[in-house]
Amino acid sequence: MKHEPGPAYSYTPIGTIHSPFTDIAGMPIQPVGARGVRGTIEIREDLREGLSDLAAFSRVILIYALHRCSGYSLTVTPFLDPAPHGIFATRSPKRPNAIGLSVVRLTGVDGCTISIEDVDVLDGTPLLDLKPYVPSFDAYPDSCCGWFEHVAENAKVTRSDDRFR
Amino acid sequence: MKHEPGPAYSYTPIGTIHSPFTDIAGMPIQPVGARGVRGTIEIREDLREGLSDLAAFSRVILIYALHRCSGYSLTVTPFLDPAPHGIFATRSPKRPNAIGLSVVRLTGVDGCTISIEDVDVLDGTPLLDLKPYVPSFDAYPDSCCGWFEHVAENAKVTRSDDRFR
Repeated sequence: MKHEPGPAYSYTPIGTIHSPFTDIAGMPIQPVGARGVRGTIEIREDLREGLSDLAAFSRVILIYALHRCSGYSLTVTPFLDPAPHGIFATRSPKRPNAIGLSVVRLTGVDGCTISIEDVDVLDGTPLLDLKPYVPSFDAYPDSCCGWFEHVAENAKVTRSDDRFR
Repeated sequence: MKHEPGPAYSYTPIGTIHSPFTDIAGMPIQPVGARGVRGTIEIREDLREGLSDLAAFSRVILIYALHRCSGYSLTVTPFLDPAPHGIFATRSPKRPNAIGLSVVRLTGVDGCTISIEDVDVLDGTPLLDLKPYVPSFDAYPDSCCGWFEHVAENAKVTRSDDRFR
């Protein structure tokens, strides 16, 4: 079947993520490696009403633009493994569409400011969407995870370098 | 702090999701309500190399354009609760950026065709990104989930209507 790629989709950020990380090198590579790292999200003032009832959740899913990545590779050698893998079998940022996903702790909502912990994103990252984390929908602890199976735990201590700058 | 919304980000779909659902009404509202429903993803031929090593994962995260939703509401009454909630405290598709997220079962990869199960998306949905599901990064079974706490299980049987058309 020939694939018709269709039109591009365009999204204006709903807010900005603030974190202590100003350089893409030396960062935690996943929230599990950023335990206790605090950050904030500033949501656009015109969207404030949409945050109602959010404070009762303990985690949120952030979907954001990996705005400092340019270009992509179809095969990458990720931080956690010396072997190369197809980009869609990795969480590497150098993806065809540079969209990031992180599950972070929610610690407070005050007006348009959301306080978060376990933040593994660059300061100034444009937030595209924020969804409540719902274990019934999102938690599959027994899922098989391919090459990650024996190395995923290393994300707790692994830091990035500049390979995906 | 005044928020500077910044530029829009544009993404060309990496492929198309096919499912048995051709109408937004009557669909499962989450993968937990679509157990066993089969679908396929056709990835763009030029991205085929990026699928290497993906078959060893049992679940993938789909990030897609909710292409049949137009406009948004900051307060919505979701399918699972008679009470209204802030849009960012729900998984409703009528979001400021109509981006969808589903964790589905991966059952096979053959060339550019990925076979999936537990599919809760419309046929023809444009896929923006596909990530491997990694329990260490993504599974938090004990997370508190606000108003979902007593109703999330109902997603197994609840079907959509046309309120978000």
